[in-house]
Amino acid sequence: MQASKQDLSVINIGLASFGDNIVRAGGQATTLDWRPPAEGDQEVGLANARLFMREDVDAANATAFKRYQEAQPRLVDIALAGDVLPAMEEQRTILHAGPPIDWADMCGPMRGAILGAIVYEGWAHDVESAQTLADEGAIAFGPCHHQGAVGPMAGIISPSMPVWVVENSAGTNRAYSNFNEGLGQVLRFGANGTEVIERLRWMGTELYESLQLAVRHLGGIDIKPLMSQALLMGDEVHNRNAAATGLLFKKLVPALLSVDLPSTQVRRSIDFIAGNDHFFLNLSMAASKVMLDAAAGVPASSMVTAMSRNGVNFGIRLSGTGDRWFQAPAKPVDGLFFPGYGRDDAAADLGDSSITETAGLGGFAMAAAPAIVQFVGGTPEDATENSLRMRAITLGTNAVFSLPALNFQGSAAGIDARAVVDTGILPIINSGIAHKEAGVGQIGAGITTAPEACFTQAITDLAATLAEKN
Amino acid sequence: MQASKQDLSVINIGLASFGDNIVRAGGQATTLDWRPPAEGDQEVGLANARLFMREDVDAANATAFKRYQEAQPRLVDIALAGDVLPAMEEQRTILHAGPPIDWADMCGPMRGAILGAIVYEGWAHDVESAQTLADEGAIAFGPCHHQGAVGPMAGIISPSMPVWVVENSAGTNRAYSNFNEGLGQVLRFGANGTEVIERLRWMGTELYESLQLAVRHLGGIDIKPLMSQALLMGDEVHNRNAAATGLLFKKLVPALLSVDLPSTQVRRSIDFIAGNDHFFLNLSMAASKVMLDAAAGVPASSMVTAMSRNGVNFGIRLSGTGDRWFQAPAKPVDGLFFPGYGRDDAAADLGDSSITETAGLGGFAMAAAPAIVQFVGGTPEDATENSLRMRAITLGTNAVFSLPALNFQGSAAGIDARAVVDTGILPIINSGIAHKEAGVGQIGAGITTAPEACFTQAITDLAATLAEKN
Repeated sequence: MQASKQDLSVINIGLASFGDNIVRAGGQATTLDWRPPAEGDQEVGLANARLFMREDVDAANATAFKRYQEAQPRLVDIALAGDVLPAMEEQRTILHAGPPIDWADMCGPMRGAILGAIVYEGWAHDVESAQTLADEGAIAFGPCHHQGAVGPMAGIISPSMPVWVVENSAGTNRAYSNFNEGLGQVLRFGANGTEVIERLRWMGTELYESLQLAVRHLGGIDIKPLMSQALLMGDEVHNRNAAATGLLFKKLVPALLSVDLPSTQVRRSIDFIAGNDHFFLNLSMAASKVMLDAAAGVPASSMVTAMSRNGVNFGIRLSGTGDRWFQAPAKPVDGLFFPGYGRDDAAADLGDSSITETAGLGGFAMAAAPAIVQFVGGTPEDATENSLRMRAITLGTNAVFSLPALNFQGSAAGIDARAVVDTGILPIINSGIAHKEAGVGQIGAGITTAPEACFTQAITDLAATLAEKN
Repeated sequence: MQASKQDLSVINIGLASFGDNIVRAGGQATTLDWRPPAEGDQEVGLANARLFMREDVDAANATAFKRYQEAQPRLVDIALAGDVLPAMEEQRTILHAGPPIDWADMCGPMRGAILGAIVYEGWAHDVESAQTLADEGAIAFGPCHHQGAVGPMAGIISPSMPVWVVENSAGTNRAYSNFNEGLGQVLRFGANGTEVIERLRWMGTELYESLQLAVRHLGGIDIKPLMSQALLMGDEVHNRNAAATGLLFKKLVPALLSVDLPSTQVRRSIDFIAGNDHFFLNLSMAASKVMLDAAAGVPASSMVTAMSRNGVNFGIRLSGTGDRWFQAPAKPVDGLFFPGYGRDDAAADLGDSSITETAGLGGFAMAAAPAIVQFVGGTPEDATENSLRMRAITLGTNAVFSLPALNFQGSAAGIDARAVVDTGILPIINSGIAHKEAGVGQIGAGITTAPEACFTQAITDLAATLAEKN
């Protein structure tokens, strides 16, 4: 057979339709799933390329990543928020999830939760008068993150709420998170009815006293080994905490039985923890916050030390850019909805809980938690693929967070903002989904990603900061 | 270029060396990993082929498999063995793991455990006089399986030991298993020192009373949902029971706090369970036994309803061949040894715990438990491969035992002895490894397979039984 003219074989890096034309003409075309760095913004792309060439950035990242890895989060106490978070002392203050946001701009579930917290504190007798107080500017608001704290979903922390006190026993920093209320009608999803407030009052008195005595009796609990073990038991310690809660329960129960408390109180505390498979979540978040705060403040580092959402905006912080937030509109969460609800009912991505992903857990550790796809959607293969893909944008892996499905390799950790801008691969986040209106509560769970614009802003800022210095 | 003579391409089903010669001569040879059915025994191979053509065998297997699937193991009570196992009433009787075996023929750890049980019962004051009693024939021995019971490793059950009482709430049959003692120096691995006997005495009094009251307070506990949930949390409920024990713990603790017992007793019982991640194993075994006994006694069925080892022989039973055991020498267990020990120190495969594999758990469900390879050896890929391979020899899958790593497909279950003989694929078993001498205890854990000869004997017997009938 005589050779034909050489066949046309093309690699297409443009629109997929360019390749279609070649195929129609009898040629072969492979369309690359390629995007230009920095979303095609040449200036940011060049600035980012320069950052990749700077040895001081690499060295700073190595330092930040090492501090993150070496941090040893240890639950050392339980306290009332107003007693340990200084900003709350001067005036009526309520902390919320995500970057700063004004009362008027907040999403429905956050407003609902704040109204509930005002009633819980006794600053108003009902939700209506609470609304008046908030509208009049009688309440100060600020991000949990500005106080070293984190809270899931609306992330509301008011002065009389108990908080986990987690200390970095390899350093000196501390982080805080509130207690998890369980599922259903709960404050963090914006519900603020009588049942919600009464549960919070019980948590703020009886449960607070029980757990404080138990934790002090134990002399503290190292959290990292619990997280590590839970990853071997199907948790990713963000949206799935069934094993971690069980491990914590096994530590707390003997302590609760050792302290001097009425047996009915101990019994109610134990029943509450046993009935809530998400109980560990807030502790996982405080532990993640402690690890990442240890890595914060290294000049020139492009490592991401916080990712958080207030239901309107998604914000990130870099180790090398101090306390500045880089924000973009929060995305919707794609996932599985409870019966009767759908995308149109959903609030945008919300909560400080993406601190777990920032620490190499949650979506980054999904390969450890195949069963989570029954809750957030997708297949176990997707879960493994997500964990693998995050390696392209991280500084390393955390051997303590070992993923069995990936032959016990460590979870991808230490997001490098340069790599996100360069590859366009966005940090993946497992999340609950709140109803967009106050008072309804959780309507599903799913997966989303951080907005790319946060990272291009952060890189631009870091590049400018370094340019000033040199 | 001129075409060469046609290249030699051969599929070799003989010895690998046949293929080597072809390769050396410049050809290509693919050597199939093929073995003749029935280990090449033409008579058994033909008998087995005839069994495959019988519709009554298929129908009987469908019935047996359905009964296994529909069984609902429920923990209904805790009792003393002597009160619920009738054979123990008449004379001094001790039950052991595996098929029947004489005192003189037993392996070291089984003898050691029996001597401990004689002391525990107070029939002798020390191990030496216990040995004299046993040598004189003053003690009756029999398999646990003959009493509807199962015990891990040596599987020793004596009359004063407490047993889990598990009932098939979809039928009427019951099964029993003793309590798990934990790791280290324990009776089931042949240790019989003072510490071992004292622990058994505490388990037979205080723990027995606590758990009996708790289980009765709860009105029973369904075991299948706990097993199912544990498979989503990294257990295979044979050699890894960390999650299942945690789930059981969460059920038992509130009940233990509700019954009228001294708080110190409750505290000791809770500490004991919290300190033993294998505590659920014996309950998993009794539940497996209940499911398989439901499938037993279907005439003509070739479904395996028991696999068990006495440390000398491995025995199996089929649904369609009644109470007969088909035995072959027990194999060594290949795995990971504790420091200071190796293969030469190990007893052969031992214990009734392979009832879990017979029920589609343990080695058959390894894909659910990647972290177990740190205990038994191999890689997570091996674990998944083992679960997949078992499909070739089973009647179906059990959707309740869902394996996340295999996209939530059910675990392979209902071993068909015909398929084992036909394919030569042997049931895989995860197992602890006991020291071959009495008194030493566990020295490792690993993986082994059931001996093929058990299955060829069983098939021969089933074929003969059916031939008589027709």
